[in-house]
Amino acid sequence: MTLKRNKISVIGGGFTGATTAFLLAQKELGDIVLVDIPQAENPTKGKALDMAEAGPVQGFDASIIGTSNYEDTKDSDVVIITAGIARKPGMSRDDLVQTNQKVMKSVTSEIVKYSPNTIIIVLTNPVDAMTYTVYKESGLPKERVIGQSGVLDTARFRTFVAQELNLSVKDVTGFVLGGHGDDMVPLVRYSYAGGIPLEKLIDAARLEEIVDRTRKGGAEIVNLLGNGSAYYAPAAALVEMAEAILKDQKRVLPSIAYLEGEYGMDGIYLGVPTVLGAGGIEKIIELDLTEEEKELLSKSADSVKAVMNVLA
Amino acid sequence: MTLKRNKISVIGGGFTGATTAFLLAQKELGDIVLVDIPQAENPTKGKALDMAEAGPVQGFDASIIGTSNYEDTKDSDVVIITAGIARKPGMSRDDLVQTNQKVMKSVTSEIVKYSPNTIIIVLTNPVDAMTYTVYKESGLPKERVIGQSGVLDTARFRTFVAQELNLSVKDVTGFVLGGHGDDMVPLVRYSYAGGIPLEKLIDAARLEEIVDRTRKGGAEIVNLLGNGSAYYAPAAALVEMAEAILKDQKRVLPSIAYLEGEYGMDGIYLGVPTVLGAGGIEKIIELDLTEEEKELLSKSADSVKAVMNVLA
Amino acid sequence: MTLKRNKISVIGGGFTGATTAFLLAQKELGDIVLVDIPQAENPTKGKALDMAEAGPVQGFDASIIGTSNYEDTKDSDVVIITAGIARKPGMSRDDLVQTNQKVMKSVTSEIVKYSPNTIIIVLTNPVDAMTYTVYKESGLPKERVIGQSGVLDTARFRTFVAQELNLSVKDVTGFVLGGHGDDMVPLVRYSYAGGIPLEKLIDAARLEEIVDRTRKGGAEIVNLLGNGSAYYAPAAALVEMAEAILKDQKRVLPSIAYLEGEYGMDGIYLGVPTVLGAGGIEKIIELDLTEEEKELLSKSADSVKAVMNVLA
Amino acid sequence: MTLKRNKISVIGGGFTGATTAFLLAQKELGDIVLVDIPQAENPTKGKALDMAEAGPVQGFDASIIGTSNYEDTKDSDVVIITAGIARKPGMSRDDLVQTNQKVMKSVTSEIVKYSPNTIIIVLTNPVDAMTYTVYKESGLPKERVIGQSGVLDTARFRTFVAQELNLSVKDVTGFVLGGHGDDMVPLVRYSYAGGIPLEKLIDAARLEEIVDRTRKGGAEIVNLLGNGSAYYAPAAALVEMAEAILKDQKRVLPSIAYLEGEYGMDGIYLGVPTVLGAGGIEKIIELDLTEEEKELLSKSADSVKAVMNVLA
Repeated sequence: MTLKRNKISVIGGGFTGATTAFLLAQKELGDIVLVDIPQAENPTKGKALDMAEAGPVQGFDASIIGTSNYEDTKDSDVVIITAGIARKPGMSRDDLVQTNQKVMKSVTSEIVKYSPNTIIIVLTNPVDAMTYTVYKESGLPKERVIGQSGVLDTARFRTFVAQELNLSVKDVTGFVLGGHGDDMVPLVRYSYAGGIPLEKLIDAARLEEIVDRTRKGGAEIVNLLGNGSAYYAPAAALVEMAEAILKDQKRVLPSIAYLEGEYGMDGIYLGVPTVLGAGGIEKIIELDLTEEEKELLSKSADSVKAVMNVLA
Repeated sequence: MTLKRNKISVIGGGFTGATTAFLLAQKELGDIVLVDIPQAENPTKGKALDMAEAGPVQGFDASIIGTSNYEDTKDSDVVIITAGIARKPGMSRDDLVQTNQKVMKSVTSEIVKYSPNTIIIVLTNPVDAMTYTVYKESGLPKERVIGQSGVLDTARFRTFVAQELNLSVKDVTGFVLGGHGDDMVPLVRYSYAGGIPLEKLIDAARLEEIVDRTRKGGAEIVNLLGNGSAYYAPAAALVEMAEAILKDQKRVLPSIAYLEGEYGMDGIYLGVPTVLGAGGIEKIIELDLTEEEKELLSKSADSVKAVMNVLA
Repeated sequence: MTLKRNKISVIGGGFTGATTAFLLAQKELGDIVLVDIPQAENPTKGKALDMAEAGPVQGFDASIIGTSNYEDTKDSDVVIITAGIARKPGMSRDDLVQTNQKVMKSVTSEIVKYSPNTIIIVLTNPVDAMTYTVYKESGLPKERVIGQSGVLDTARFRTFVAQELNLSVKDVTGFVLGGHGDDMVPLVRYSYAGGIPLEKLIDAARLEEIVDRTRKGGAEIVNLLGNGSAYYAPAAALVEMAEAILKDQKRVLPSIAYLEGEYGMDGIYLGVPTVLGAGGIEKIIELDLTEEEKELLSKSADSVKAVMNVLA
Repeated sequence: MTLKRNKISVIGGGFTGATTAFLLAQKELGDIVLVDIPQAENPTKGKALDMAEAGPVQGFDASIIGTSNYEDTKDSDVVIITAGIARKPGMSRDDLVQTNQKVMKSVTSEIVKYSPNTIIIVLTNPVDAMTYTVYKESGLPKERVIGQSGVLDTARFRTFVAQELNLSVKDVTGFVLGGHGDDMVPLVRYSYAGGIPLEKLIDAARLEEIVDRTRKGGAEIVNLLGNGSAYYAPAAALVEMAEAILKDQKRVLPSIAYLEGEYGMDGIYLGVPTVLGAGGIEKIIELDLTEEEKELLSKSADSVKAVMNVLA
């Protein structure tokens, strides 16, 4: 019953990692450690200091430090991994796999060395396979290693729908299963505006266009930016998942979870609806799928497996 | 009595401008237009879209668009200028003056063309001279053209003091007059922790070190980052000033204001304590200064004038 | 393009009215005028002052005044009516009708005298008939006179479901049509947890119990309190509706709206899904109903009409 | 390193206690237990349920329960005591002492039975003597038993000053020592607007009036209400202190602390500037006082001792 501040480490001090750290600090969710490689230590310290200096103005108290020393992450309650190389225009997610696998192994061994009982959220692409890599390397129970994709995918979907209908994003929901991006399985029948199924509000063809835009939502940003990839919405997604865990909120959020039988899958990390709380993934919610959805999910799982086969 | 959303345009879609747009959107202060040059239009659109996609997750409703067309800024209530080239390591603020003056003239004429009665907040360095340039070019009343420096300078000071004393940043205040950075005139006697003058809590030598670090606070970040300058705290500072205006809060905040007799100065933009509300700078607060402070302020004004002399 | 603070008047300084004023102030949605009858002027002033004194601590700036003089409500953007006598244990909503009708007429004529173009939100019970009374008395267009019931009813439903499933209330939604309380028509098929229809998560019998508890949700609080009725959740509901309007959020929220043909009804105020924005009710969303739902809605409308027949 | 939600118990389910519970829930500071006597159990449950039902609308997740069973408070991180009889018009604070002492003894023994290592914040009047009573009865270390008065007194002072100067309450600070209300020792020289000493902004006579109004701030509300006393601002004050502790914020806030030598006092609870963090009162800040201030503080201490002498 001794009170203490939570501690959250963010691995990778690039745009996504830095933005994640900042959004965590704004919410006063705990003290923040932003970690990057030794060569990037000074920029990481610079970003952390710049963020901390926003605290008096934005009204948040949070210790934010930049470091390349994993000792500083000791006893983290939650660790978020954004490290790895970013997807560039024209590059497929799978091209990233071997490089980022090495990065995952390296950072995971350091993370668990100092926080052997933490909860890890993975963003690095290809995220399903990278989450699996972290799971294996960490030795943590499956419910404590979680991948992010669905919160971001549905955020994009919700944005497009809200714009289409000229409604508040607060009242639009989306629902996806399966892999990230191209392999996303959208469950439009579980997506609503003000509780009303979108199928009643948007015609099928237009809805399909929105789904398709969502699927390619990461690439849309990559192509616009020309140099780099999205980081505001990905960071927001990571922070929502972390907050659900840190505050034990029992949020129903899509997570990349390790399946052992659920949805007829075994030994694979895949996007499914979950309950996030203090224990990490506290529950995987199983849904009855239509035949078409089953097929899409199976195809999505095949894509993930194909990437997993590339893993060393 | 017709309700409408406020509209805020941010000129310059670099890190500071983009972060400013994001923080404005988070606070649902209005609809946001992020403007950059035509060559940067796509990246600007990409950032705006990425931010908008964070809305459903962070729970904010705001239209955020990226554009290079000033027509999109029409009828802005507040315009924030972050455009201009950034200070690079080793570069003095004054080196920037001629390039950024051209930028100011160009963007200002576009701004007032579409929002002839707006309020403009300037961040671009050297900020005192740039605010003056915008004032002259815009034809707006002096209280509607405002420069930012003191909110940022005191935010840094407050951060350092809070760390020194291990206290919440919420309870530490700072106070500066004069120019930005090197020319800053800190009024330590008006700076407190929990209302207690800092001079009673920190010895003079250490306090002087903190003041000196504050003075060089921008350079500290520039040197750490290696490539680029601070943007989190500057963006937070801009947003606090914009919020004070948009919500008519009557905040007492340091602003770069056009002086006509106040503090014995005339025809110069300089950092002074002001009241910010719906009218922009609604009041300049005059303080009795010690002889030493007067001298420092005079020196600071000389620096600003030296830059103004460089103006074309 | 002159910035101004919004103004919101709350008629009725009892617990609900006072709590509404406080929640509005917390969100800095505008300046607040809390109005009660002359005999209650001092207590109303006392509450307003007490709330204002919470501002420095909670960090909000808002002028909150208590008054019995409608002149103080001049040029209100939104007016919320909570005045009227409260339901006591054992008293039906309909018993209230004649007394509260007089109150509505009296306050409405004062409101529109000083704010002829305002938007009015009515909470007073029996709310459907009272909203109608205000509409008639005010002479305002139908989209500017709105009754509250569905936001509160669904809030209760969401609370019970979240407790039942041990999930975050953030991820549970509900959907109702028709009158308030006993006459509520729950559309369970449009109610979800994390986007998953509740019917898949809670068995039918238990769900019916929850619906029934929701229907009697007001009475449950009345019975527990022994003396008085609910005010926290009702106030929160009013504030959400007001915020949607003041910020032009295009929220999809259930409102008591004047129907002219929609849902086969004419000349009656009834709870339906609406889009709330700067114009008040900007849209009524029509849904296909099942035969059973149509019958329930028709029965609900009959109840409202029965109350309307009691109107003088 | 197992994450858990904090738990806060509020003793006394009257207006102040209920409002405190609600403000705690809004900030998602933990799960809330609102406790009252068995005869008031149902109303307490009713208030707790009503608050919980506001959660889905206001967007907070918090378990809020009403109870008369102290077992439900087990393992509270912080306990806030608002129980006791309220001051009525014409009644002095000291009249309350004997009745409320009994209440304090009774509730304290129950609190520490179930939360032997908690931190207690006391609001009940006469608060200095009541905090002492709780300290003695609880057996807790002195830094874990804290009284509230200064946060409220300065909140009132700040409100009056902000209104006087037409400035944001965010930029006005106040500073008090000593007992609550009549015995308050205002340190106007440590009170500021935008960092500027108030003495430079308001003339001495007017400032004295504001101080006097602050001193009588509780009575002003009591007289206006006619029946009952302030609860919004007192609740906000309690919540700010609790938040500082629960989030380990190291806030510099005035607290009623047990003095053992500080300010030349011994064995007495008196209002002094403190640092509040996870350990409760982590530091008492000592200030050099003027002779006049010393005298006023001594007089204030005498008043507190006079009340302590009434304690059984």
